[in-house]
Amino acid sequence: MNASAESSARSAVTQPASPESELSAATAAELAALLGDRFTQSPAVRAQHGKNETYHAARSPDAVAFPQSTEEVAGAVRICARHGVPVIAYGAGTSLEGNITPVRGGLTIDLTGMNRIVAVNEADLDGTVEAGVTREDLNLHLRDKGLFFPIDPGANATIGGMASTRASGTNAVRYGTMRENVLALKVVTADGRIITTARRARKSAAGYDLTRLFVGAEGTLGIITEVTLRLYGIPETISAAVCAFDSLGGAVDTVVQAIQLGVPIARVELLDEVQIDAVNRWAKTDLACKPTLFFEFHGSEGHVAEQVDIIRAISADHGGGDLDWATSTEERNRLWKARHQAYYAALALRPGATGWSTDVCVPISRLADCILETRADLAQSAIPTPILGHVGDGNFHVIFVVDPERPEEFAEAKRLNARMVDRALAMGGTCTGEHGIGLGKIDALEAELGETVDLMRAVKAALDPQNIMNPGKIFRQP
Amino acid sequence: MNASAESSARSAVTQPASPESELSAATAAELAALLGDRFTQSPAVRAQHGKNETYHAARSPDAVAFPQSTEEVAGAVRICARHGVPVIAYGAGTSLEGNITPVRGGLTIDLTGMNRIVAVNEADLDGTVEAGVTREDLNLHLRDKGLFFPIDPGANATIGGMASTRASGTNAVRYGTMRENVLALKVVTADGRIITTARRARKSAAGYDLTRLFVGAEGTLGIITEVTLRLYGIPETISAAVCAFDSLGGAVDTVVQAIQLGVPIARVELLDEVQIDAVNRWAKTDLACKPTLFFEFHGSEGHVAEQVDIIRAISADHGGGDLDWATSTEERNRLWKARHQAYYAALALRPGATGWSTDVCVPISRLADCILETRADLAQSAIPTPILGHVGDGNFHVIFVVDPERPEEFAEAKRLNARMVDRALAMGGTCTGEHGIGLGKIDALEAELGETVDLMRAVKAALDPQNIMNPGKIFRQP
Repeated sequence: MNASAESSARSAVTQPASPESELSAATAAELAALLGDRFTQSPAVRAQHGKNETYHAARSPDAVAFPQSTEEVAGAVRICARHGVPVIAYGAGTSLEGNITPVRGGLTIDLTGMNRIVAVNEADLDGTVEAGVTREDLNLHLRDKGLFFPIDPGANATIGGMASTRASGTNAVRYGTMRENVLALKVVTADGRIITTARRARKSAAGYDLTRLFVGAEGTLGIITEVTLRLYGIPETISAAVCAFDSLGGAVDTVVQAIQLGVPIARVELLDEVQIDAVNRWAKTDLACKPTLFFEFHGSEGHVAEQVDIIRAISADHGGGDLDWATSTEERNRLWKARHQAYYAALALRPGATGWSTDVCVPISRLADCILETRADLAQSAIPTPILGHVGDGNFHVIFVVDPERPEEFAEAKRLNARMVDRALAMGGTCTGEHGIGLGKIDALEAELGETVDLMRAVKAALDPQNIMNPGKIFRQP
Repeated sequence: MNASAESSARSAVTQPASPESELSAATAAELAALLGDRFTQSPAVRAQHGKNETYHAARSPDAVAFPQSTEEVAGAVRICARHGVPVIAYGAGTSLEGNITPVRGGLTIDLTGMNRIVAVNEADLDGTVEAGVTREDLNLHLRDKGLFFPIDPGANATIGGMASTRASGTNAVRYGTMRENVLALKVVTADGRIITTARRARKSAAGYDLTRLFVGAEGTLGIITEVTLRLYGIPETISAAVCAFDSLGGAVDTVVQAIQLGVPIARVELLDEVQIDAVNRWAKTDLACKPTLFFEFHGSEGHVAEQVDIIRAISADHGGGDLDWATSTEERNRLWKARHQAYYAALALRPGATGWSTDVCVPISRLADCILETRADLAQSAIPTPILGHVGDGNFHVIFVVDPERPEEFAEAKRLNARMVDRALAMGGTCTGEHGIGLGKIDALEAELGETVDLMRAVKAALDPQNIMNPGKIFRQP
């Protein structure tokens, strides 16, 4: 999607940002005194920080801060706390459920200036980065040390943002999500204190797991300013392959059986035939227009060969064709680039369209049912709806490629998405595998966990009694 | 340690339990109406539930309940909440830091009657058990299905207790701790509501991670009554080996290098020469009296062979002798039984002794320094102090084998332990890898996390405003 298409796509669902900042002159003066020209009320900068890559309405914050240290973040939060001004942490702006929309205005804190790699402990396979470091920058830095950080949500998100939304993506089937890969956090609390949630030890039983409490809290309990991560040695052998299937069910069943057998696949991504067609058009690939699995295997040469043999046998049993191999780094990058551009390829199916990526996750035994029933339900709709997913985790996305000039399409997508969430919940699944709740899944979370959400509200009230940290997200407050 | 030795060992550090229950007649009557003869104020039963396997003083609860369902637990908690009576969840009673001691009296809820395996979903590699199921009973149940649950803290603890203390043990280096292996919990809250923290999906970004908040909360936020766990297929090949080293440093460096190379060892346990000597006497084994590593490898035959080749080479480089193999199930069980009885073997070094197992965990790069400095510090002491550890995680234990008649030995152990905790913290480590805070590490937690503990207090106050759930543990309250 090019910039002008993007802009037109959004205009239809954008509430005009208030041109005037509603921040009090006193608050603005204090923030300006702290940050100098790294504090701004410029309408353009504000508007840029109210947009998001989603179907949710944009809304500008009243001001934007660009701190360069945890101390500056803490200073800004203390000023906002004194004046009761909402504070929204902002990374790459790639979240998908309106997670960074300042629904009650306030100060957006853009952390992209905090992009230092604080430490890499090669011997311990861990490292500490400021929240604004992107995953691509981190991996670029790590490559010469023979290390990598596996979590890969597709977008070049910041590590702080990935922690805040409990992101996962293509490597989670083998390496886990941000939940499993964050060792410790530096956090600015709602009253502007700076705390560290844990030490660098690989495991600890030292009190409540505050690290996991902030991971996935979407900035509603505090602002993550530094993240200590597990890192991994680059595997001796990495091998990727593509396999096209006669049926969607055959592709899904292949994955289910591989997981049940315990094959430690590093990545296994499903693209249905609609999505493959979109990728072919967008990335000029010539993949067969069939439901397709993208695999990646990590390990020693012998161990990878073993995994491949098993996958080849299972695929053949389920109507899979030959495995098309990519062993060189170049070929692998080409293959995964095609996968990573799937969202943009989907949007390009319909010039000027807005994308709405759904995100359910079910126990693997129900995955085939969930995808096939969803596909059948979508068949009634004229909206293009490619399906792709991190199927090894039971997680998949339908992308609604919606015409922003036709509100009836949004209404239809909303109905289809609600049914998809209900279907996943009925199968023991969750309303969001990795995108978070934000604004878009508030009702779905209630449907999923009911009264349990009251405990979340109680934790929120305890750690942010003024309700200034990214208010209005995850749940409705009394 | 036999029963009479155990009893005499404890007497020296036991405050006499109040022979009279301090529960009001009204509370007792309500609990008796709910539970019938599964509610008792018998002094013997109360005393039994105030003991623990540690150096901490015993203290009896005022009454003990034996519920058989989550609804009964909720009913009992509601009665206690109305009357402001403390509630302590109790499993196998094998925790080590006074975690279940009713320091303010109240009702101990013994969950061992809730020992049903609710569901095993073989296709999803997960299962749900009541909190009172022990890990050995679970594994017995799973064996015929070709599945196992790897977390193994040594003691035959209950799954609810293991979740509450964030237990780990010998398999954590490969499979993670309870933190990584609990998918969802059923919990009775401090006001007697029943909530479920999550669905069965392998991953989720649905709101705050309440599952991880209750895992490791030591019953201070609510009572876990059901646990949904990840399960694993029994590996095709399991191979165990013992390797004796010329020096403690050589043994530790072998582990450090193996971890840094990413060898997916399933278990790697260190026993120093003092501990090996104790095991030989206790279990009638004839292991060489040297620092020794116990290894276990899981995988396909080829993959295990690969791992073994690497370990053999690293061991030889670090003064390790031949690897002594145990491939049959019987031989492996014998070998691991020797390891698992290490604590009792240590106690038997000194008849009538009380054991005090310390528990620090450091980044792996500092493990050799931490163990060697600790060993040097211990050399000044006359107290027997075997060292053993889950060294793949950077976690190890010194067992102080203390004469309960000599309070000066407790004082000395306390000083040595404090220095060990300080040493671990100075190296970026944690005061507890797996035993939890309980009563014994309250000051250490403050030293480790400082002001961060205030956030834990705030969460506690939010979820248990009356402070009735296992009060007095983890931190001091205002």
